[in-house]
Amino acid sequence: MRQSTLCSSTLREVPSDAEAANHRLLLKAGFIRQLASGVYTYMPLGRRVLRKLEQIVREEMDRAGAQEMLMPALQPAELWKQSGRYSVYGPELIRLKDRHDREFALGPTHEEVVTTLIKNEISSYRRLPVIVYQIQTKFRDEPRPRFGLLRGREFLMKDAYSFDASWEGLDSSYRTMYDAYVRIMERCGLQYRAVEADAGAIGGEGGTHEFMALAEIGEDTIAACDCCGYAANMEKAQSRAERPAPAVTAVPPVEKVHTPHVRTIEQLAQYFGTESRNMIKTLIYAADGKPLAVVVRGDHEVNETKVKNEVGALELELADAQMTAAVTGAPVGFAGPVGLQIPVLVDTAVATMTSGIAGANEADFHLQHVVPGRDFSVERTGDFRNVKEGERCAQCEDGTLQLFKGIEVGHVFKLGTKYSEALGARFADAAGQEQPVIMGCYGIGVSRMLSAIVEQHHDERGILWPPAIAPYRVHVIPVSVKDEVQMRLAEELYAQLRERGVDVLLDDREERAGVKFNDAELIGIPIRVVVGKHAGDGSVEYAERKDNEKRVLSVEEALSRIMETI
Amino acid sequence: MRQSTLCSSTLREVPSDAEAANHRLLLKAGFIRQLASGVYTYMPLGRRVLRKLEQIVREEMDRAGAQEMLMPALQPAELWKQSGRYSVYGPELIRLKDRHDREFALGPTHEEVVTTLIKNEISSYRRLPVIVYQIQTKFRDEPRPRFGLLRGREFLMKDAYSFDASWEGLDSSYRTMYDAYVRIMERCGLQYRAVEADAGAIGGEGGTHEFMALAEIGEDTIAACDCCGYAANMEKAQSRAERPAPAVTAVPPVEKVHTPHVRTIEQLAQYFGTESRNMIKTLIYAADGKPLAVVVRGDHEVNETKVKNEVGALELELADAQMTAAVTGAPVGFAGPVGLQIPVLVDTAVATMTSGIAGANEADFHLQHVVPGRDFSVERTGDFRNVKEGERCAQCEDGTLQLFKGIEVGHVFKLGTKYSEALGARFADAAGQEQPVIMGCYGIGVSRMLSAIVEQHHDERGILWPPAIAPYRVHVIPVSVKDEVQMRLAEELYAQLRERGVDVLLDDREERAGVKFNDAELIGIPIRVVVGKHAGDGSVEYAERKDNEKRVLSVEEALSRIMETI
Repeated sequence: MRQSTLCSSTLREVPSDAEAANHRLLLKAGFIRQLASGVYTYMPLGRRVLRKLEQIVREEMDRAGAQEMLMPALQPAELWKQSGRYSVYGPELIRLKDRHDREFALGPTHEEVVTTLIKNEISSYRRLPVIVYQIQTKFRDEPRPRFGLLRGREFLMKDAYSFDASWEGLDSSYRTMYDAYVRIMERCGLQYRAVEADAGAIGGEGGTHEFMALAEIGEDTIAACDCCGYAANMEKAQSRAERPAPAVTAVPPVEKVHTPHVRTIEQLAQYFGTESRNMIKTLIYAADGKPLAVVVRGDHEVNETKVKNEVGALELELADAQMTAAVTGAPVGFAGPVGLQIPVLVDTAVATMTSGIAGANEADFHLQHVVPGRDFSVERTGDFRNVKEGERCAQCEDGTLQLFKGIEVGHVFKLGTKYSEALGARFADAAGQEQPVIMGCYGIGVSRMLSAIVEQHHDERGILWPPAIAPYRVHVIPVSVKDEVQMRLAEELYAQLRERGVDVLLDDREERAGVKFNDAELIGIPIRVVVGKHAGDGSVEYAERKDNEKRVLSVEEALSRIMETI
Repeated sequence: MRQSTLCSSTLREVPSDAEAANHRLLLKAGFIRQLASGVYTYMPLGRRVLRKLEQIVREEMDRAGAQEMLMPALQPAELWKQSGRYSVYGPELIRLKDRHDREFALGPTHEEVVTTLIKNEISSYRRLPVIVYQIQTKFRDEPRPRFGLLRGREFLMKDAYSFDASWEGLDSSYRTMYDAYVRIMERCGLQYRAVEADAGAIGGEGGTHEFMALAEIGEDTIAACDCCGYAANMEKAQSRAERPAPAVTAVPPVEKVHTPHVRTIEQLAQYFGTESRNMIKTLIYAADGKPLAVVVRGDHEVNETKVKNEVGALELELADAQMTAAVTGAPVGFAGPVGLQIPVLVDTAVATMTSGIAGANEADFHLQHVVPGRDFSVERTGDFRNVKEGERCAQCEDGTLQLFKGIEVGHVFKLGTKYSEALGARFADAAGQEQPVIMGCYGIGVSRMLSAIVEQHHDERGILWPPAIAPYRVHVIPVSVKDEVQMRLAEELYAQLRERGVDVLLDDREERAGVKFNDAELIGIPIRVVVGKHAGDGSVEYAERKDNEKRVLSVEEALSRIMETI
């Protein structure tokens, strides 16, 4: 490709809302352009990268025995009503009506469509297992589209679905997809962790892993053991419980203390001359509208996913002032477990405290010498908090947990029979008995992966594309297109590389050398060949984007070096 | 691929609304499945064909120097308002609102988006010309989705857009795309005609051609000369005007005749003892709401596209009874050109009549001896009718026109500056003057092409895929999977073909031979190798789908024959 004809240019300025490096660099280097909030055009450079990513994903899916198909974006609302998700999905599901007033959704995912399809296609265990996949455009009306392609409203996904006759079959399909994902991440040059994750709203029983690209801008937090292989999403991560405090025989009875103008846990700890780990923090929630108290240690955070799963709630939000007053008799900020008449979930770390300080359910008062089990029930004790950096791993003896930020680029998920039961996808087993098909679903955000890769592979001057997905492998840059000797040599190299099937970009623009070099670093093609002052001797300057180490080589040497590197 | 694991089955019955052969066969053979009216899933077999089509289109676009990009389906309504198409497009444009109540359209085409993009990307003539394209899913809420993929509501298109600094440049970009289309049609094995077409609602000045796949179910009619290369869509087609009738000096004056209970042109001709070609037919239209009369010969049909273009109307429809009564003073059926006080368009074939019989603008009366030019004005004479089979070609001396039915699979179109002016896409020319970019647009219905190919390539037993786009090139069919000798030979052939990179489907299903053969003919893979009674001698039965001529060959012979054919 001749850069003079390339449809897209590098930008000097990017919009100030482009906070993330990948967003800024993809805009600046001309890979993408925004059409609307969370809606992007892939310019020719971006399309090339996206297609290379697609191809890697496709090859690994095919190798795993998955069959490619293509399902529509327009999905009849009836299917979503049958699965029960039409009401659950909320405003993220883009809804529309056709000219006959029939309701449709723009698919953010395809469980309903694929389950209905398989229901009509497969009736016997003999035709199972089957794994199908598609690489297709999805729609989701994000409340806060951001970070460019990372959280968009229209995006490219690979979604796969497995159908098995047994739970062991599902385990095997799941493992097959998991392994394919590992190969995909590696081929794309992503630093990632596969982490245990919570099942979330998509539903279903059984295991689920997220593939997280490690990146500071990641919206997910991962806890990983520094010793064993354990890694989990914060929603799911567990640490080893601390040893219970030694039993103390005589804790004085509960005592009410006046605590005016003391607001935060830290202020309270100071007021009582102790540490926040000795405070008992009580939060009042509305779980599907019903009040619920969750009690954690003062230095811990409630994990709402764990709470939701414990009580089986669809919606969990902090109670408003009205509900708080109704159940505690006090304004927000003074709740405590003693005397509460609503269900109370007690985190294990609280249950093992000797005693602590808690709210008194009365404005401007707290209680000290509160003993869990003596002064309030610890019947519903469990893990209801987020793990913290440095806590001990629950899976091994010696490890401690470290926290990372991650971008979820992939997800493998055991759906079980949630959709096959709701939509009636059944098969006859070997004994002729009708059974619901056992399903798994497996997603990769292809466009999101592109973002994550740039987030990991850039420096202050631009992108450093991993070779497998670089828009071009080689950038040939004649310093001056008006210099005939330089141009002749550059054109020769360009022609030779193309003949060898190498993706090459020739910067034949009439621009100053500085502009060209800056653009080259911004665009980030892995190998750069500058044709400049040595052109008269038939020599060029060879460098790789990753280290910028320059070597003067003859054209033949440069060619063979390129072919070796590729 | 092993057919036992293929996700899709052949059907015995297809829905009764599948009227067209392509629709019936693609459903029956398991290439597609309907999700909603005009909305289809491509099953693995269908996806393979679609990808091969995509790849041919992509290769020819790349070869033509067009750059691939990917634009969003979600398009802000503002852009459509700027171009003026938001109101014009009607209910075919799928509209929706996002969670912030902002209006969007689901793109049926991308002129607005691409013009806005180029506006921001290109500011100087030095960066022109540019041709960009995408292969992308489009949405159009068809009033009557039908014929399967042929007229769907969600479909795959290749759309390309050219941007030039001069009209000569546009001519050259247009020719480049035209030539690429010719190569695409030929590589896909389509019988087609490139025909002159009317510019239609998309707007703009200059030339346009449609690429029509010839097929009886086609919704377009093409007139083509049997002698020269002339071919045009019926909307646009012209024939050579007949020689004027010899001047007759004395036509008697107009005479009013009572014609009760005579309704049709045929009845009138009979009543007057003459032929319908001697009748003058007058139709009253509402052109953008204003009355207009169009006068054609009794045996001719009005061409509404030609009429619209003549008067520059956006909407043209037959006048209702009220308007007809207001302008003619009579009920519908008695209009005539004599004495009308509204604009009258006279078709050339009428203007050259010696005299004729016309409506009297009075219920139950007609006029005879009506002489065009004497009794009514022929000032606005032109071509306002459809050509008829057998008329003389307007482009050559000896040819006559033949009519064909065609499916529009491609369209090349000179847009000119319609969109660049509306959306402000300007560039600085060599003299530094700002000019609107000169555009062309070029569409191919990729999924529609799939339909058209099946429409042309099938017989009563199933599909006959052109090899370049067949889902698999070879179908290996062991007659009995329980026969070890047969299975071993079939597996060996399968392995050898795969090793050679041949797309091959192995029918390893436990089915009766008759079922397998029927399915094979239905699916339509070009080469079939049956492993049956000759397996013991290491021989197989080789046949091609197109002629079914069977040859017993050794496995080695079969292999080399396959490699030759491919």
